[in-house]
Amino acid sequence: MTAAGFKKLINDPFDAVDEALEGFVAAHADIVAFAEPRVIVRRNPSAGKVGLVVGGGSGHEPAFGGYVGTGIADAAACGNIFASPPPNVVLAAIRAANHGRGVLMGYGNYAGDVMNFGLAAQLASAQGIEVREIRVTDDVASAAKSETTKRRGIAGDIIVFKCAGAAAEQRLSLDEVERIAVKANAATRSMGVALSACEVPGSGRPTFELADDEMEIGMGVHGEPGIKRGPLQPADEVARILVDAIVGDIGDRGRGEVALLVNGLGATAYLDQYIFYRGARRALEASGLTVVRSYVGEFITSLEMAGASLTVTLLDDELLSFLDAPASTVRFTT
Amino acid sequence: MTAAGFKKLINDPFDAVDEALEGFVAAHADIVAFAEPRVIVRRNPSAGKVGLVVGGGSGHEPAFGGYVGTGIADAAACGNIFASPPPNVVLAAIRAANHGRGVLMGYGNYAGDVMNFGLAAQLASAQGIEVREIRVTDDVASAAKSETTKRRGIAGDIIVFKCAGAAAEQRLSLDEVERIAVKANAATRSMGVALSACEVPGSGRPTFELADDEMEIGMGVHGEPGIKRGPLQPADEVARILVDAIVGDIGDRGRGEVALLVNGLGATAYLDQYIFYRGARRALEASGLTVVRSYVGEFITSLEMAGASLTVTLLDDELLSFLDAPASTVRFTT
Repeated sequence: MTAAGFKKLINDPFDAVDEALEGFVAAHADIVAFAEPRVIVRRNPSAGKVGLVVGGGSGHEPAFGGYVGTGIADAAACGNIFASPPPNVVLAAIRAANHGRGVLMGYGNYAGDVMNFGLAAQLASAQGIEVREIRVTDDVASAAKSETTKRRGIAGDIIVFKCAGAAAEQRLSLDEVERIAVKANAATRSMGVALSACEVPGSGRPTFELADDEMEIGMGVHGEPGIKRGPLQPADEVARILVDAIVGDIGDRGRGEVALLVNGLGATAYLDQYIFYRGARRALEASGLTVVRSYVGEFITSLEMAGASLTVTLLDDELLSFLDAPASTVRFTT
Repeated sequence: MTAAGFKKLINDPFDAVDEALEGFVAAHADIVAFAEPRVIVRRNPSAGKVGLVVGGGSGHEPAFGGYVGTGIADAAACGNIFASPPPNVVLAAIRAANHGRGVLMGYGNYAGDVMNFGLAAQLASAQGIEVREIRVTDDVASAAKSETTKRRGIAGDIIVFKCAGAAAEQRLSLDEVERIAVKANAATRSMGVALSACEVPGSGRPTFELADDEMEIGMGVHGEPGIKRGPLQPADEVARILVDAIVGDIGDRGRGEVALLVNGLGATAYLDQYIFYRGARRALEASGLTVVRSYVGEFITSLEMAGASLTVTLLDDELLSFLDAPASTVRFTT
């Protein structure tokens, strides 16, 4: 049974991931296909390019299959709910994405993913495939500025995947695609707020407890502890707190132009997401930054968790051109 | 304060609609602009065509502004939460959409909308603008087959708007655009399931009460009574019940090809939506229909309500070509 308040439209919880993936591939068969049961690939692979593999746990839909297609990823390796895909699944994704020019793996910086993607890269390497990786580390709430390599990856994933995918689609070398991914990650900072938990199917309990009048700033997408728990506040005030933390983390502002992405975590209405976007944009502009690209919606969710995150990417001409480059995936089309 | 369980990321409830619209237009300024505070129009109007005005209450985001752009609507008239836009707002939308070849209004069949859009059409007519309307009536749960004109409009709105918008974009006459809209509506049937209520900002209470272990089949998107309340059931069983009702309502099946749209109402995870899609597709195919186009996601929501609806459209070459025709709006791109 489900926990009170979490009413799911699923069948057997143990079949949820595979049934959802089956539905996803059936619904979008013009764009994606299965390479293996947990590996989503492009329906029409693009030869002669660096391959981009993305992935991570399920429960974050439309991530990660929603970013497979022209202009972004070649393959997505999908794990169980909130659990890293095992090395054999990642290896299958690497092999499917390999067109002889090397493969870049992009994933959020979580211990399980680091281990499994790392093992898969070793196996692929032994098979003669050159593999690099970008661990996305955009969540400024998850570690101090002095320890950015310990930070988790959240919605900044999408920005990094998009830029790296565009670079690969333009037939740049593995070195160059990796450089763009590293640059996009370094330019990208996020922080979120959780208003409620979600329920992993079959677990019968929420991922964490939060009182009816509370929110938690900086909480991770799987319920990892945040930096401040307190009473619910107006959207503008929450946006200001997150923007202050993000902007305070930026060193050189470059020319001060940014992309702003608002990511709904699952249960937060679009109405709220656009109010939150408005507040965040005002706060960014009050801090002297200019928002030149905007993305609002559910990009990487936590099942039916309520809350949202802000992602800010400092742009230069190069990153902007990769962000704007053509893409045709289920979730992201430019 | 919000009701228990409904944690919102908003500021003053009375500003919610205008702030969300302001955020929406700021985020998507490449596609949309304001004609008036509650009227969203294309950033780049397309002259020499029939105008398409869509609209209805707010709280259904990404409807209705998300369908303004090339290939679909010229203008969206936006009301308060779950309340029809007043006649002067609809009139402003008609005027903004008018390029001298007449205007079609498309909206869901609700008493308030029928009255306000009707009054606006009279006012526009007095100003020399020829106005027609399509009242979308896809919700088979809301009235018997013998009384289809009493049925409400739910996610079928999107299919009807898309086909009519494509016809208008192809410079067809008002007669022809109206004919396509009527045809798309007649070919489209929907039914939904509600798993939980939502809260109108500032109301302090849920839109309806549903026990922790209950669902309601056929409930409307504003909490209008459905046809059966009962214990939660597996997604496949819910899909089968809805598909049976929809298919039972179809007369001539034509060549048996359909589009299937799964619409998440707000809080239901994408994971669940794709499981639900899979079940619905299997049920349709078991009944002898073939799914040739699929759309899964949040198209017309009810704030943070949990649940989903299924929409099935019988296709022929003409409707299929309009569905597939190019569109570039915030929510729907083909």
